[in-house]
Amino acid sequence: MTPAETAGIERACTRLVLQFAKYNDDLDHEALAALFVEDCVFARPLDPAHPYYGKDKVHAIFRDRKARLTRHVMTNILIDVVSRDEARGNSYVTMMSAPDPDAPWPREGEGLFIGSFDDVFVRTAAGWKFKSRIGNVALYQGGRVPVLPIPTVEETGTAQ
Amino acid sequence: MTPAETAGIERACTRLVLQFAKYNDDLDHEALAALFVEDCVFARPLDPAHPYYGKDKVHAIFRDRKARLTRHVMTNILIDVVSRDEARGNSYVTMMSAPDPDAPWPREGEGLFIGSFDDVFVRTAAGWKFKSRIGNVALYQGGRVPVLPIPTVEETGTAQ
Amino acid sequence: MTPAETAGIERACTRLVLQFAKYNDDLDHEALAALFVEDCVFARPLDPAHPYYGKDKVHAIFRDRKARLTRHVMTNILIDVVSRDEARGNSYVTMMSAPDPDAPWPREGEGLFIGSFDDVFVRTAAGWKFKSRIGNVALYQGGRVPVLPIPTVEETGTAQ
Repeated sequence: MTPAETAGIERACTRLVLQFAKYNDDLDHEALAALFVEDCVFARPLDPAHPYYGKDKVHAIFRDRKARLTRHVMTNILIDVVSRDEARGNSYVTMMSAPDPDAPWPREGEGLFIGSFDDVFVRTAAGWKFKSRIGNVALYQGGRVPVLPIPTVEETGTAQ
Repeated sequence: MTPAETAGIERACTRLVLQFAKYNDDLDHEALAALFVEDCVFARPLDPAHPYYGKDKVHAIFRDRKARLTRHVMTNILIDVVSRDEARGNSYVTMMSAPDPDAPWPREGEGLFIGSFDDVFVRTAAGWKFKSRIGNVALYQGGRVPVLPIPTVEETGTAQ
Repeated sequence: MTPAETAGIERACTRLVLQFAKYNDDLDHEALAALFVEDCVFARPLDPAHPYYGKDKVHAIFRDRKARLTRHVMTNILIDVVSRDEARGNSYVTMMSAPDPDAPWPREGEGLFIGSFDDVFVRTAAGWKFKSRIGNVALYQGGRVPVLPIPTVEETGTAQ
């Protein structure tokens, strides 16, 4: 690959990372789901032990949960191009949120959380997509760590 | 446009976003104002309802207010190239500040604020500039939200 | 230089800034040290008055201190290409940490610190490296500012 091709793949994958945050914070769940391939894997940062399998299951997480006002601050985006059709990435996510996205701004946040994502990106006919996105949370300050209910197998789907 | 031209515009506009933060934090108000075209619009994140019109009015905001120690952490910079001469952008700003920029470091901050900017960039003979920059603040933690006095029409100018 | 060459240097130096944070947070001290040239200078953000001279001395700082769980969030990375073989950079670092990197996640952080790095990068036969990296911390919120013991001349080395 030429340096220009490598740089182009880095740009495309970086953009996916930023779009995931934007669509998540904008509550645009359909656009968020469209960033993944059909047979994807996704693990939420606060519950990495229970990954979700398949674009529909990922879509449902965001669509069906109670909406919050969130801001996912994405940084430290490191992309490693594996081949013309595959790349890996690591990025940091710093998150603040509050209940009720329709209340007037600015809202007092309920804690600041710093985690990261490990990503696998693949090239498809419709451009680069997430194949795999595994989150975690390392540190927080203020607020408290939410306890997420363990999802059912119906919710997560199963590895193909 | 070629991918290289698009990438070049993205780089130029990303750089403007970072320079705005740098010049703001460095109290270099002249350099900050020079990032805007003459007939620009700018709305401060904590007071999006009262935009300022024209480079001189924008310059005056920063030059004439009481100086603080600030750090504007810029992330999630998404640039959409509209044409060879225009681009749009969205970015997140995470801000901490303290009074008295001349006191010894490190200083205890007065709250952490997360907001964003919606930008319109245009190409000029002197390179890419902000045509429009509209801020807001969504969330904060610690400290309290400052109440800004409503600016006069003399301060803000009016839309041309 | 062509715009493509300039962009390539910016990418390489940005990557060094992100790799420094990653290797630091991953406790990969060998890889971190390899980002510097032999005759480098490095000043820690919380103690800019006592720079360390030489790659071995820098390596030892990280290798020999008590390990903590850290996340260095890197943003506002502005690279200025000086020549084909030298570049300068400024970036912001937002840091949270906790003792004991082996305790279960997420951990409660001990303060949020915002500082920056002033960098000089040089091209070597093994790619771009840090020649000089001078940190500082401007603001913090929560926790308290750690008091670092003044390093000995044996620890810091001396300017060549």
